[in-house]
Amino acid sequence: MDHFSATDHAMMARAIRLAGRGAYTTRPNPMVGCVIAHGDEVVGEGWHVRAGEAHAEVHALQQAGERAKGATVYVSLEPCAHTGRTGPCADALVAAGVSRVVAAMRDPFPQVDGAGFDKLQAAGIAVESGLMVGDARGLNRGYLSRQERGRPWVRIKLATSLDGRTALENGESKWISGEASRHDVQHWRARAGAILTGAGTVLADDPSLTVRLGDDTPFLPPLRVVLDPGLATVTRGRVREGDAPTLYIHAPDAKRPRGMTAQAATAPVKGGLFDLEAVLKLLAEREINEVQIEAGATLAGAFMAAGLVDEILLYVAPVLLGENARPMFDGLGITTMAERHHLRIVETRYIGHDVRLLLQPMHTG
Amino acid sequence: MDHFSATDHAMMARAIRLAGRGAYTTRPNPMVGCVIAHGDEVVGEGWHVRAGEAHAEVHALQQAGERAKGATVYVSLEPCAHTGRTGPCADALVAAGVSRVVAAMRDPFPQVDGAGFDKLQAAGIAVESGLMVGDARGLNRGYLSRQERGRPWVRIKLATSLDGRTALENGESKWISGEASRHDVQHWRARAGAILTGAGTVLADDPSLTVRLGDDTPFLPPLRVVLDPGLATVTRGRVREGDAPTLYIHAPDAKRPRGMTAQAATAPVKGGLFDLEAVLKLLAEREINEVQIEAGATLAGAFMAAGLVDEILLYVAPVLLGENARPMFDGLGITTMAERHHLRIVETRYIGHDVRLLLQPMHTG
Repeated sequence: MDHFSATDHAMMARAIRLAGRGAYTTRPNPMVGCVIAHGDEVVGEGWHVRAGEAHAEVHALQQAGERAKGATVYVSLEPCAHTGRTGPCADALVAAGVSRVVAAMRDPFPQVDGAGFDKLQAAGIAVESGLMVGDARGLNRGYLSRQERGRPWVRIKLATSLDGRTALENGESKWISGEASRHDVQHWRARAGAILTGAGTVLADDPSLTVRLGDDTPFLPPLRVVLDPGLATVTRGRVREGDAPTLYIHAPDAKRPRGMTAQAATAPVKGGLFDLEAVLKLLAEREINEVQIEAGATLAGAFMAAGLVDEILLYVAPVLLGENARPMFDGLGITTMAERHHLRIVETRYIGHDVRLLLQPMHTG
Repeated sequence: MDHFSATDHAMMARAIRLAGRGAYTTRPNPMVGCVIAHGDEVVGEGWHVRAGEAHAEVHALQQAGERAKGATVYVSLEPCAHTGRTGPCADALVAAGVSRVVAAMRDPFPQVDGAGFDKLQAAGIAVESGLMVGDARGLNRGYLSRQERGRPWVRIKLATSLDGRTALENGESKWISGEASRHDVQHWRARAGAILTGAGTVLADDPSLTVRLGDDTPFLPPLRVVLDPGLATVTRGRVREGDAPTLYIHAPDAKRPRGMTAQAATAPVKGGLFDLEAVLKLLAEREINEVQIEAGATLAGAFMAAGLVDEILLYVAPVLLGENARPMFDGLGITTMAERHHLRIVETRYIGHDVRLLLQPMHTG
């Protein structure tokens, strides 16, 4: 039990919920929500919508106006202390005369990292942190992964049969999961900074890897990333079409074809396999918070075997594809029970006729 | 919508719930529950506990005494009209002077099959049937399968990894599912008339296939059935130990070893595989209502491929065993999407750290 009151919890829950409205648009910035209240009465609230535009605190202060004076401010992440594309929120809160700031957590961003709290305290404002920190971290797991580990949060999306198969022996996989699941995936794509696949999937399935929400919800198109050691697929495929950018990651010795217009970068290749840690580091440097892997069993298995997967988004369709169909992951190389991978079931939910499981490998903190 | 009142529904729900208390003991008889009421007031209730002992209606009538006169009787199955090991319930209801009988469904047992209703109606009692028939059928799916199809209800129990594997490549499967799941299985065994396995599983895993509920709940020990064409396993294994009977089903040309004391029966074998329809017919003739298959991928797959599976009880453990581990079903022979097996998810539930899925192949009515 923490010392925060029920009102504190309710207000912070509201701030975190507001923050989530920025899930498809704040990238590469973290999602932040802010609620300004006198006791149970909310006088202002807001969330960060888009990088370069006003922060959550600014929206909430504008709404509160004079009533910000003496109020408590609930914010899902430490207020910023630096001048980026917008001014420091800590200064704005001081100027507005608030009396208490409750933050869910400190912002590990090097130019903040406690400096926001320091500014507030120096101005005589009561500062408390740690309220609902678990929820706040979950919200920004991608941003936090990039700040703290120097790599994106890695989610593998899979659609399998009940017997754990992702395609028939001949590679056919259209469609294992139902229409509702295929629509649900779009929301997970929309919150990812990048959708990553392999050259094999581009050749076999020709996916577009774009976000199709089916309504007017605004979103930032995620970067499409193709791991293609020899640049064998750069001249073909729907993955190059549409508004979203595409990045090809290739081996250092591969030749870029004349006139290639897509983005390209290189990553080390050992024994025909990319150094996946280097690939993730490269994506973090491009400010990718969350990467969603939508690939075949070889690439998905390589990420799993390397211990680089944070989350598995698994759509299980109530069908059987039989013993010759393709496995979920190739190359796990398990021969004893002690070597099996353990996962934690975070959530289960029906999506149409399928069941969606959200899982985290047990090595993930 | 049916024409039954809310009270009718509540009373029948109570009767069906009572019936379920006989799940581990009424075999081979159906489970039956009975509630006697005046309006919302229950004056007597009971359930059938054990074959050869009093039927549900008799228990309820005894409790109601004089108050049965003019009452409505709710019963989950048509009252019997014949003298078996107990007298006809229809006669007892007439003698007690009840004025209305509401049954969930007709009893297809040849010596009843409408004759119970006829007796009641002939005595001037208002008879209605069909209230909550779906639930009533579900309760006695095994009994009804035997009466209507001449074969038991077939449930396959499986414990798999998330990637659909039931054992490592070397056959090791202890344990994929957690302790809570292995305990949960005991309740499903207890309601089955028979637990069926193959000689391969006896040799590899040496299961006892007994019921271990871990408390004093009474149950009838299910028959243990081993499909063993050549009688290769009759002299070994825990499946012969304990109080439960064991039945070996073998090929007609196999020699029974001298001094073999276990029960034995023969079923036709074609190309090394048992005629599984004949096996099920044989079990129905032995009054088995529900059979639970706990076997390896070959036998489980043979039942699936033959379209003889009514239900899959699937414990999914949040682990990965990899691409070389053993499949859920062998021999499905699926090469096109059109050939995949479709199932219906009847229920999902957390059991410890595992997820339990109850599934029915779509061919099942």
